[in-house]
Amino acid sequence: MITSPANARVKAAAALHNRSERERSGLFLIEGHREIDRAFQAGIIIEHLFILEGVEKPAWTVAGMAELVLGPVAFAKIAYGRDGVVAVARRPTFDLESFNPAAPQLVLVTESIEKPGNLGAMLRSAAATGAALLVADAATDMTNPNVVRASLGALFIVPVAQTTSAEAKSWLHKHDIVVAAAVVHDGVPPWSLDLTGPIALVIGSEHIGLSSTWLETAVSRIQIPMVGAVDSLNAATAAAILLFEAIRQRSAGR
Amino acid sequence: MITSPANARVKAAAALHNRSERERSGLFLIEGHREIDRAFQAGIIIEHLFILEGVEKPAWTVAGMAELVLGPVAFAKIAYGRDGVVAVARRPTFDLESFNPAAPQLVLVTESIEKPGNLGAMLRSAAATGAALLVADAATDMTNPNVVRASLGALFIVPVAQTTSAEAKSWLHKHDIVVAAAVVHDGVPPWSLDLTGPIALVIGSEHIGLSSTWLETAVSRIQIPMVGAVDSLNAATAAAILLFEAIRQRSAGR
Repeated sequence: MITSPANARVKAAAALHNRSERERSGLFLIEGHREIDRAFQAGIIIEHLFILEGVEKPAWTVAGMAELVLGPVAFAKIAYGRDGVVAVARRPTFDLESFNPAAPQLVLVTESIEKPGNLGAMLRSAAATGAALLVADAATDMTNPNVVRASLGALFIVPVAQTTSAEAKSWLHKHDIVVAAAVVHDGVPPWSLDLTGPIALVIGSEHIGLSSTWLETAVSRIQIPMVGAVDSLNAATAAAILLFEAIRQRSAGR
Repeated sequence: MITSPANARVKAAAALHNRSERERSGLFLIEGHREIDRAFQAGIIIEHLFILEGVEKPAWTVAGMAELVLGPVAFAKIAYGRDGVVAVARRPTFDLESFNPAAPQLVLVTESIEKPGNLGAMLRSAAATGAALLVADAATDMTNPNVVRASLGALFIVPVAQTTSAEAKSWLHKHDIVVAAAVVHDGVPPWSLDLTGPIALVIGSEHIGLSSTWLETAVSRIQIPMVGAVDSLNAATAAAILLFEAIRQRSAGR
């Protein structure tokens, strides 16, 4: 058992909270039983596992997977939550070449979203609706531990690509996926559009909205009608409303 | 200007982060320009205002409102964010007697929700849809600074009452509001129900769902269909989807 937070493996794992170290090493952290299980099922390569002293060893660990038991002080250097298990895993690339949403494509595109919690929540909604996620111009890396955690492991279920807005746009064009931009004025309600065909729903950041790249490309402008005295919805909430409206239309068509 | 974090008024304000002190004093904190403005418009009584040194005085301050300029160290004892302004205000009671949703009532009922961020997000969705919020059996006080912040001040726009599940149930019954419970199995899609009349949408906690109090009362069981490989949505996301489905149906009827 490792008790010292100064242990080299503990320090190396803790350093993966920083993006630069994740990029340098090609590794990232996955915390929690469900999250690690989903990553493992998705073919993510687990390098080793840290288990908090006294916590039961996960049932799904495979032969040859290195496991290190940590004392509470050392474990707290790596973990945020209370699950008592953290994996060090090889970082997926999330490249556009291997992005392959199921037809008829339902793609959530996010532009310049920064908050890991919002990206995590969008991943949960995408997983619940069978949608894919195209992350454009994000300042946040999808292997950020807070994205992984907030997604409850949906990161490993949803087809995800991370790229620029320009490349995302040409990818969608090449695959004949219609672009609909979420706007806060001069748009039509989501239920007035046909969302049953291949469609990309594009959501901008809460602060600046969508860039002209997307506003000029969009075939439709979707505006979620606000009845009350508020100006905006949280970006992840808006994404969920649009994705489930697509599901409503698609299930009605069956 | 007050520079010391040990100043008595600063300490008294910082103590309002604790529920027991809010209950004892009848005061709570409101942080942010927009949030304080909304509270003020809603008739909340502002006792005094703390302004961070160098931050412009809000345009809406009224004659006689006590303002205290704080140095950064003292201000950091009270504030979470970067807006540079915090008000100490009199705590609303959120009692059922003064709960008065507009007809046809659209009431979001939450049972045993604990996370301030979820309550805040639900308040934003309620404000956007003109819904009222009935908070049942919550472990969290609605004047918790994180609820106020996460709601972006929607707490002061939405009709809110905080009570027990039993009292919420009889209030709804007395006002002829139909109860629909959100469930994760054995329910019907929200779009298969008529949500245009007076209705209460009841959401339970993520961990334990709804109690038998609500499951036995409910006329309908609503289940948000999940296409993908996930078991649940965030409670605030589920609330937003149901509220906006009601808005879709109500706007289609116009």
